[in-house]
Amino acid sequence: MKVNVMTDILKANDLLARDIREMLSSRRIVSWNIMGSPGSGKTSVLERLIPMLPAEVKAAVVEGDLATSRDAERIAKTGVQSTQINTKGGCHLDAAMVRSALEKIDLDGLRLIFIENVGNLVCPAEFALGETGRIIVSSIAEGDDKPDKYPSMFRTAQLVLLNKIDLLAQTDFKIESFISGMKRINPKADILQVSARNGSGMPELVKWIVNRLL
Amino acid sequence: MKVNVMTDILKANDLLARDIREMLSSRRIVSWNIMGSPGSGKTSVLERLIPMLPAEVKAAVVEGDLATSRDAERIAKTGVQSTQINTKGGCHLDAAMVRSALEKIDLDGLRLIFIENVGNLVCPAEFALGETGRIIVSSIAEGDDKPDKYPSMFRTAQLVLLNKIDLLAQTDFKIESFISGMKRINPKADILQVSARNGSGMPELVKWIVNRLL
Repeated sequence: MKVNVMTDILKANDLLARDIREMLSSRRIVSWNIMGSPGSGKTSVLERLIPMLPAEVKAAVVEGDLATSRDAERIAKTGVQSTQINTKGGCHLDAAMVRSALEKIDLDGLRLIFIENVGNLVCPAEFALGETGRIIVSSIAEGDDKPDKYPSMFRTAQLVLLNKIDLLAQTDFKIESFISGMKRINPKADILQVSARNGSGMPELVKWIVNRLL
Repeated sequence: MKVNVMTDILKANDLLARDIREMLSSRRIVSWNIMGSPGSGKTSVLERLIPMLPAEVKAAVVEGDLATSRDAERIAKTGVQSTQINTKGGCHLDAAMVRSALEKIDLDGLRLIFIENVGNLVCPAEFALGETGRIIVSSIAEGDDKPDKYPSMFRTAQLVLLNKIDLLAQTDFKIESFISGMKRINPKADILQVSARNGSGMPELVKWIVNRLL
């Protein structure tokens, strides 16, 4: 019973996500679903990244959260359009929420949309949002065992940002262990080491994003 | 439809959780549901805590995870009984999983059971496991805004462990901001600053736990 209901919900979500993906790509807009644990640095990465994008690459941000609109307010300070989805306790974004959020955004001339998912390394993996691809932000402080322990999430990423790399010396994190985990779970994903705090690795992230524009 | 199904599931879970709670307390066993984000340090806190407990306080650990049995193996090295629940991708533990796990544990003479939930700051809040109470492990590296952003979880805790306090100087974390958030969301919860890495604050945690034995 529970399984059937979930299957129907996921099927309806996938259809809606396909419509969103087609609508965005017909406008040459690339969209990235930004996922990661609470406090991995999803918003901080976007705050650092957006001002570094080439001036002609117009971006917008959809922020997902259980409660509060703090993240959208932080993003608004970068000068791009941002809108907040409050899931009212829900553990993931879905395509219907994203469709409503996109109605509040002027899509004209946009080349990029970042959709920041709820901080959760489990549930968001199951819900397509119409994104072009997925970026996981994983903080050094979370430990190097995360790909093996949260495989459903890491399996679906095109890019993993190993964030807070400035904390490396203060932790027991072994980069090689994380990379071996990714090789087991999702060998095709790219991995970039970044620090949203001090900016290291961010030029490589800009390049990665710009290379994938439509 | 979805809502009704969820309500039925939660109701059945609550009844089972009540049975577990009564069974454990009739044996004078206190059980703590250990919750927190992926990588907040739940297992590391238990590894540090268990050897510090008074010799007469026998403990056991139930480990919950999406995949792998790494955490149970880490705990087994402390010498206490430990058993692993694999949720096979599920985002939280439920009372039925805990009941099965408890069947694998010799309860005779136990005073404490720690149930480490799936790393997730959202879904586990809804599912009672028959625990005496809840402890959230929240890492300094996750930022000081977490109580406001994940209120459903922080609202249910008896104790919040502010872990990785050794990283404080390397982050922008403000202890007062975290404490104000907790005052808004759950003013009754205790907060202890600890480091599972260097052991600071751990004697206070031992005292907190021992004071609540049955």
